[in-house]
Amino acid sequence: MSAATLNSAHWDARTLAGWSEPHLANVESALSRWVGVDAPVLLGDAMRYAVLDGGKRLRPLLVLAASEAVGGNAAAALRAACATELIHAYSLVHDDLPCMDNDVLRRGKPTVHVKFGEADALLAGDALQALAFELLTPESDEEGDEIPAATQALLCRLLARAAGSQGMAGGQAIDLASVGIALNEAQLREMHRLKTGALLQGSVEMGAACGYVGPIALAALRDYGAAIGLAFQVVDDILDVTADSQTLGKTAGKDAAADKPTYVSLLGLDGARTQARQLLADALAALERSGLADTAALRALAHMVVDRDR
Amino acid sequence: MSAATLNSAHWDARTLAGWSEPHLANVESALSRWVGVDAPVLLGDAMRYAVLDGGKRLRPLLVLAASEAVGGNAAAALRAACATELIHAYSLVHDDLPCMDNDVLRRGKPTVHVKFGEADALLAGDALQALAFELLTPESDEEGDEIPAATQALLCRLLARAAGSQGMAGGQAIDLASVGIALNEAQLREMHRLKTGALLQGSVEMGAACGYVGPIALAALRDYGAAIGLAFQVVDDILDVTADSQTLGKTAGKDAAADKPTYVSLLGLDGARTQARQLLADALAALERSGLADTAALRALAHMVVDRDR
Repeated sequence: MSAATLNSAHWDARTLAGWSEPHLANVESALSRWVGVDAPVLLGDAMRYAVLDGGKRLRPLLVLAASEAVGGNAAAALRAACATELIHAYSLVHDDLPCMDNDVLRRGKPTVHVKFGEADALLAGDALQALAFELLTPESDEEGDEIPAATQALLCRLLARAAGSQGMAGGQAIDLASVGIALNEAQLREMHRLKTGALLQGSVEMGAACGYVGPIALAALRDYGAAIGLAFQVVDDILDVTADSQTLGKTAGKDAAADKPTYVSLLGLDGARTQARQLLADALAALERSGLADTAALRALAHMVVDRDR
Repeated sequence: MSAATLNSAHWDARTLAGWSEPHLANVESALSRWVGVDAPVLLGDAMRYAVLDGGKRLRPLLVLAASEAVGGNAAAALRAACATELIHAYSLVHDDLPCMDNDVLRRGKPTVHVKFGEADALLAGDALQALAFELLTPESDEEGDEIPAATQALLCRLLARAAGSQGMAGGQAIDLASVGIALNEAQLREMHRLKTGALLQGSVEMGAACGYVGPIALAALRDYGAAIGLAFQVVDDILDVTADSQTLGKTAGKDAAADKPTYVSLLGLDGARTQARQLLADALAALERSGLADTAALRALAHMVVDRDR
């Protein structure tokens, strides 16, 4: 693939796949080196089972694309990419537990607690969260890469905020409290902004934090992250209704069955699809506003978020 | 209390109480300002319930005493002190869950899941871990204090290692796998080195990270942390046998009932007490080796760990 193709503003799915391939290989290899290797046996196995060999790796790709757009430190971006995936993976492990969604199927495989028991699933999730912050703060001589302390601290700050009570965990708590309750669209949006959006937006911000970016571009990247974060959830709600469990790799129709409010229940299927297209347009407009030269991968990822079928 | 008294090498419990009082007030006030305030309602309540108004605050005191011994940055030390307590608090919330120890009483109150339900207890623990790292990485202008990025990154690194699969979470996993199994003393020590020791030792190291300390003093402080970390667990095992639930504020005799290996089951009560005194002597010898001038608070805390009755 030529550099001209890679720099084109309009990528198709194949171009994105070509860009993603080496990045995904790096992420998988790094995760395999870093996750659960020196952990006590069963815990390490549960951590690796939860993380390796599965998932779209959307958050890592967002980190890497944003970092490339700002000329970021590649070693920092790889660690940040893996850290976002660890937070995502731990949230799935805990979310699948019997006291939460009680789900037995994830990415087409038995969930972690089904395979390793609830106690080890709980601990594996806890250990994955800690590992995310450990990955972000390597000693200066590890792996031969130097990641400035200011970058390490900023990455930890962004990840902690995205994961915590005013981010992902907070959104899950609102979700818990919303079953059977009629939320309006603003309340539903706020719930998803935290539950799913915060970590997706955080991934974009972490990628940007690996390089230098001025305030206008940073604000635009945040808007991009917010738009695709929400779009991701709208599409998730659509797929929960339209896709089957085998394609999704998880149980379809769960939200409707659990009487959870969704974009589809609120806006109808067509309304939700219109919303997703609007958010895609918002995301692309934000990239235009950023003034950054090389946002082709970020553009393509936004399309992928909206056009995916699982 | 005179400065001469405060600097004496030999403190009694009253001297320690006098030193601790303003520090504990600062820690309580900071935790109350920082924990769960802007979280969604029930999650915030569960986080605050888990953290505020309870516990000995041993880890924060270790951070603050170690920081004072090395002339550390007070703002950094207060944040580090609170961060260690958040990790400790989250581990108790998760440890008390039905799938782990299934405990209903903690610090004389119903455990978090009894009061808020399992799902919110799980999320509160998760959010507390994230908050610990958020506290360690304030933006430079928050609270008017400047904490160097290098200090922030080092504190995150130490806390992540102490909390994760090669620290606290790893120790809990070994503990889980050890019920009904005959561990020898070396295996029991390794389990406790991770489960309880890592965060106590990490607290001492984090305090030291708030200032400057040379390699000899740092190694000595680590040895001190390792000794009191292990001593803490030996004394815990003794108290599990000798104290009643009301004094402990948690269910006594649980470990014996669960057929868990303990220092008492392995060494007998007298043997465990001898071990505790030896570890205290080791801790005090390490402080001597450190060459640091003002280790009176650290000495007194070592005594407190071994002489406590709850």
